[in-house]
Amino acid sequence: MEFNLQSQDSNSGARAGTLTTAHGQIQTPIFMPVGTVGSVKAVTHDQLMQEINAQIILGNTYHLYLRPGTDVLKAAGGLHKFSGWPMPILTDSGGYQVFSLAANRKIKEEGVVFQSHIDGSRHLFTPENVIDTQRAIGADIIMAFDECPPYPSEYGYAKKSMELTHRWLQRCVNHMAATEPLYGYEQNLFPIVQGSTYEDLRRQSAEFVASMNCAGNAIGGLSVGEPEEMMYELAALSCQYLPADKPRYLMGVGTPWNILENIALGVDMFDCVMPTRNGRNGMLFTSKGVINIRNKKWATDFSVIDEGIACHTSNYYTKAYLRHLFIAGEILAMQIASIHNLAFYLHLVAEARQHIIAGDFAAWKRATVDVLKQRL
Amino acid sequence: MEFNLQSQDSNSGARAGTLTTAHGQIQTPIFMPVGTVGSVKAVTHDQLMQEINAQIILGNTYHLYLRPGTDVLKAAGGLHKFSGWPMPILTDSGGYQVFSLAANRKIKEEGVVFQSHIDGSRHLFTPENVIDTQRAIGADIIMAFDECPPYPSEYGYAKKSMELTHRWLQRCVNHMAATEPLYGYEQNLFPIVQGSTYEDLRRQSAEFVASMNCAGNAIGGLSVGEPEEMMYELAALSCQYLPADKPRYLMGVGTPWNILENIALGVDMFDCVMPTRNGRNGMLFTSKGVINIRNKKWATDFSVIDEGIACHTSNYYTKAYLRHLFIAGEILAMQIASIHNLAFYLHLVAEARQHIIAGDFAAWKRATVDVLKQRL
Repeated sequence: MEFNLQSQDSNSGARAGTLTTAHGQIQTPIFMPVGTVGSVKAVTHDQLMQEINAQIILGNTYHLYLRPGTDVLKAAGGLHKFSGWPMPILTDSGGYQVFSLAANRKIKEEGVVFQSHIDGSRHLFTPENVIDTQRAIGADIIMAFDECPPYPSEYGYAKKSMELTHRWLQRCVNHMAATEPLYGYEQNLFPIVQGSTYEDLRRQSAEFVASMNCAGNAIGGLSVGEPEEMMYELAALSCQYLPADKPRYLMGVGTPWNILENIALGVDMFDCVMPTRNGRNGMLFTSKGVINIRNKKWATDFSVIDEGIACHTSNYYTKAYLRHLFIAGEILAMQIASIHNLAFYLHLVAEARQHIIAGDFAAWKRATVDVLKQRL
Repeated sequence: MEFNLQSQDSNSGARAGTLTTAHGQIQTPIFMPVGTVGSVKAVTHDQLMQEINAQIILGNTYHLYLRPGTDVLKAAGGLHKFSGWPMPILTDSGGYQVFSLAANRKIKEEGVVFQSHIDGSRHLFTPENVIDTQRAIGADIIMAFDECPPYPSEYGYAKKSMELTHRWLQRCVNHMAATEPLYGYEQNLFPIVQGSTYEDLRRQSAEFVASMNCAGNAIGGLSVGEPEEMMYELAALSCQYLPADKPRYLMGVGTPWNILENIALGVDMFDCVMPTRNGRNGMLFTSKGVINIRNKKWATDFSVIDEGIACHTSNYYTKAYLRHLFIAGEILAMQIASIHNLAFYLHLVAEARQHIIAGDFAAWKRATVDVLKQRL
């Protein structure tokens, strides 16, 4: 996997790069739509490629391990072939879902024992077997197994948790080295910086992660309830100690303005369920601000959803029609809103990239954030 | 509205025609996807046009009257503009939904009083005001207000119901003549044959309907629980007394084989929720037979959904992936199944049309029905 930086902003930490994977190139900064079980909710592959301009999607190891399971994925030749998604895939390690979804989880040195949220069956995730599962999924980018401590966490807990994550990371690195890809193409491990909200821990974790010399690095444990300013400070700190010549991935972030601010801090990759989840609830992110489309005020607004971006769906359906579909409980409402929101996120990172290359990113970002945050 | 017959099958009643409306031509026999509130459930307009090859869709007057309401539709300039659907639209009269969905309905000579299934509000539908509503919707084809008696109905009830439907029809015809389209293009009324399962009533009703000399005619009150053979006999009888130079529309029918059998009897137009509703439940109609995609047997079947039809979605996603999406409860499952089933229905009527023109419809129909009915 290769990462080439084309441009660095002189007034911020923002960078424009190209990440080359076995399934194609990714122009950074990039947003990765979340495709939990190998499907971005309510969006077809065609729409992802043609309307949204997705370059890479994310799969959740926890979900894919439970359903359809590694046997089916192996029989298909991996998730790309199973789902028909031909472009890059990143999988998380399953750690986050074990903590947020599974029942009766117990953390041990070996790994985490938990019960499936689907049928209550018992499972053990270890650094080694989550690498094996991600090998079976065939992800282009594999995430290390980590513990994501809640916010707030006490210093003692945060430190112990980080140290466990580091020991697990070493085991992941070892197991990656000891195993081969199953489908003949390269897979790369990204380790994850933890350390909760403590600056010394964040620094220590970023330095340890950097020392692993992986193809890319991630920042975890943020956007879990802490104030936005704290997230920015900790992301900035993490970026500072992560190598500049490797892509930096901030996990689970966030709103459009969160993404712009973190691009300014040196982050290259993002994922978040917000555009799809909020979209399904009728919240739209647009080039003019935030819309609650269920609001009565849109009932006879026959202007299109967002003419500020080059997405067919956003330029075709009107606000009044989309509101009607939401009020009537039509599935098409969720489809349109999900396509629009994802297209908007991809538009936004593509715009950011252009401004980084053009050299006016910082000024553009300041002006844009104010517009995007407006409630319409 | 013009209807031109290109070809009539010499071994059956099947016909191939072209119906010309203000929003474009329709090649018959045709299947019309149901777009209840102005949205074919789980399917985008692009998919309807490009993948499914829909030529006309159906809207439900009852639903559209309640939501978004005629004020919003008038402000938008009709349903075509409101929804962005540029091709022909047919609306039912609302009668059927009043009987199947609304609460506390009371039939009077004037019309039907009922309570909304959404908020319990009281409404009155009359032959005149459902014409007004369909004028406001801007439907290309407007259906007459009728009562659809349940199956089975006693002779006395069926006769009185039919006679009421005929008096309402006369009022619809009068009101159509007394009113103008709101948006500058032609709208046409189709009356509906009723008469339950009684041959003399069906004949009487078909003759009365024919005497109205409308641009097209419909057959109602079938596929409401009666045996299939009875439906075919009554459809045949109705067709016999309806003019051959006008399109015949059999309402609410049915399975793929129902459609082929009724084409053979002289029916030109169909609508049914089956392809979308059953699709959303995981039942697929394919060129090789019927599939319950939730079945375990498809878990590792990596063949595409149906290579027998020229639909991108049907040729792209595999049975194993679609099954996984259904089991995981993903919205994309309903989207894919709905697109496939509708594309299959449109494929089937297009195939039927080709065989009618080629002169081998009857033999093709016999062989095809056996294949389509198979459970895979």
